[in-house]
Amino acid sequence: MLKALAFNCSLKSSSADDTSSTEKLLSQLISELRRFDVETEIIRAVDHDIKPGTDHDMGDGDAWPALRAKLMESDLVVMATPIWLGQPSSVAKRVLERIDAFIEDLDEKNRMMTFGKVGLVAVVGNEDGAHHVAAEIYQAMNDLGFSLAPTSVTYWVGEAMTGKEYNEFREPPEKVALASAMAAANAAHLAKLLKANPFPGYVK
Amino acid sequence: MLKALAFNCSLKSSSADDTSSTEKLLSQLISELRRFDVETEIIRAVDHDIKPGTDHDMGDGDAWPALRAKLMESDLVVMATPIWLGQPSSVAKRVLERIDAFIEDLDEKNRMMTFGKVGLVAVVGNEDGAHHVAAEIYQAMNDLGFSLAPTSVTYWVGEAMTGKEYNEFREPPEKVALASAMAAANAAHLAKLLKANPFPGYVK
Amino acid sequence: MLKALAFNCSLKSSSADDTSSTEKLLSQLISELRRFDVETEIIRAVDHDIKPGTDHDMGDGDAWPALRAKLMESDLVVMATPIWLGQPSSVAKRVLERIDAFIEDLDEKNRMMTFGKVGLVAVVGNEDGAHHVAAEIYQAMNDLGFSLAPTSVTYWVGEAMTGKEYNEFREPPEKVALASAMAAANAAHLAKLLKANPFPGYVK
Amino acid sequence: MLKALAFNCSLKSSSADDTSSTEKLLSQLISELRRFDVETEIIRAVDHDIKPGTDHDMGDGDAWPALRAKLMESDLVVMATPIWLGQPSSVAKRVLERIDAFIEDLDEKNRMMTFGKVGLVAVVGNEDGAHHVAAEIYQAMNDLGFSLAPTSVTYWVGEAMTGKEYNEFREPPEKVALASAMAAANAAHLAKLLKANPFPGYVK
Repeated sequence: MLKALAFNCSLKSSSADDTSSTEKLLSQLISELRRFDVETEIIRAVDHDIKPGTDHDMGDGDAWPALRAKLMESDLVVMATPIWLGQPSSVAKRVLERIDAFIEDLDEKNRMMTFGKVGLVAVVGNEDGAHHVAAEIYQAMNDLGFSLAPTSVTYWVGEAMTGKEYNEFREPPEKVALASAMAAANAAHLAKLLKANPFPGYVK
Repeated sequence: MLKALAFNCSLKSSSADDTSSTEKLLSQLISELRRFDVETEIIRAVDHDIKPGTDHDMGDGDAWPALRAKLMESDLVVMATPIWLGQPSSVAKRVLERIDAFIEDLDEKNRMMTFGKVGLVAVVGNEDGAHHVAAEIYQAMNDLGFSLAPTSVTYWVGEAMTGKEYNEFREPPEKVALASAMAAANAAHLAKLLKANPFPGYVK
Repeated sequence: MLKALAFNCSLKSSSADDTSSTEKLLSQLISELRRFDVETEIIRAVDHDIKPGTDHDMGDGDAWPALRAKLMESDLVVMATPIWLGQPSSVAKRVLERIDAFIEDLDEKNRMMTFGKVGLVAVVGNEDGAHHVAAEIYQAMNDLGFSLAPTSVTYWVGEAMTGKEYNEFREPPEKVALASAMAAANAAHLAKLLKANPFPGYVK
Repeated sequence: MLKALAFNCSLKSSSADDTSSTEKLLSQLISELRRFDVETEIIRAVDHDIKPGTDHDMGDGDAWPALRAKLMESDLVVMATPIWLGQPSSVAKRVLERIDAFIEDLDEKNRMMTFGKVGLVAVVGNEDGAHHVAAEIYQAMNDLGFSLAPTSVTYWVGEAMTGKEYNEFREPPEKVALASAMAAANAAHLAKLLKANPFPGYVK
């Protein structure tokens, strides 16, 4: 059985907002993952006091060490973010900065502790920005040791300057539903393979 | 009187394509510039044999030196590009790479020959990518000595994965028309100011 | 007299860190601005409780409204950020998200309240990322109504994977010092021009 | 036995330049791939007349169909590019635009013809830009159906504004050599797994 941990990186806390567009798309992706026998958990990042910094524990009530423990046990990690100014949210950036501490923890074969984990991305905005947000997150996750299956993003954005919201859809548009299903199927396949066949690492 | 030079960086040559979405949005921006007494010229970049490289003249039939001469006489330079894979076209990149040769031609006050020129951007795609394309072009143009007035981009992209084209619109959507008008008004204002008041440069 | 407000978007608070590389480069840029009779103030963003969100005031002890008031009185706004994962810090993103609320406050001529203000950028990292960070911030600031003079960034990054820090330099490298001087000279020139000659805006 | 196809996306043709920094880093990555029993071929893209466009064959002497045939037979595809203006070269963009035609060729299980292929990136510049270039290429390749193993990029950039070239190194710096070895080891492992265990695709 695989485990997936998803960070919803909305700027809005769950108490302020029960109709998050990001949550809506993320839930659809999560449902697709469950079809592949994946156990899932969603973290609303802004509900947790994730301190700025790039150590594993920034002290002083830092919520990251507990989240980090969950992340360590996961086979798939989903970054879900709204788009602001065409870019990932500050909350998504904070989560990635904290994962950054993994970059220096190498085993004797130069492997990060994240090797074998698979990344996934969900992006929602009124308009424009999904590909760039995916690019930013792919590069950060790949630098941090995650693998990526083909088409690892599901996304929705509206027509330029029209202001529509994803949570206005009762059902996901057909192509968005397909993107979510495909992203989940690919990532689950890859995560299973990598769990059974770890990266061998490298020693000079 | 100001002069504007616009590069339409479509992948399609003008002979192959008389219904370019990029051309359509660019024409609207150009019309707005004319209202400010700006003389304008559009170059369909792909119709010209712009060689790869970063010198002023790459020889062997290189079309760039003639285009460079036009650019030198212009007060405003418009980069218009379609979006492919969420990014600027290879043709837009080629034009920017050739402008790159200006970066090393400094006068005695450390000014590039482009100082005082103002940049503008027009971006069109089926879906998604306008802000990132603008970011890439802003940074390249700014590094290359261009100034930017507020909201220097006009753009249109459709809803995610729906495949609509900008050339299907008879009239530009109201907000797109406003973005074009505003970008033109701001850039023309700035170009006039800078023409009358050149950057002083700097000497240690 | 012009006013400049600078946001140091380091992940480290000022109490934790008196040898910030970001602070060091920013101070050099600020010194250059002062030569042009610019009054300056530096805000260490992470010392202030800037809440997530995109309203002018997110309530509940939000530090942004006070900072926003300072920003409104400034002619130049400097965004200074370290590079993490090749990207701007989460703290820089937070500040930009909060400035985002200006985007909907238009006057009767469709002008944002930021029109006439000039942006500047300072970026520091161990290695790699300055141009992309500048691109992200340029696009965000330009969307938010700021103007950009030529070469609006000063930056330093070390050779790939070598881990040098900017605060190890006693004096800025000559070319970095020139970049800071030029960025300051250009931005101050532009800010003076725009203060005396506001953008006229546009009405249909 | 695996096959790797590498595109060297230098702006300089092979006749003009036998000391390409891009070629140097790419060769090191290719040597590492060979240690894993991978058959390799390097294409100097600018030596081939790759027409602008997004169809499989743009006619009129287009060199892409022959390159596309090679790509179809490859298990690994390496994109190697110099950095210009902090961004991938126009030549790299051209290659990616032509691969873009795969995006619409889906089999009955909604799989692109690239599914199962693994991407790799090599980036070289005087200074700054490797992470962003990797981000652009990762996102493009992932959208186009490629998978990515952890740390799929090897790169070198010099200290900001110092002008050093990678081809000045006799031997790769130790950390760059490790990055190349690790990228090759990870990608070869993933390519073998995916060749033996294809993505199952998805049907509603």
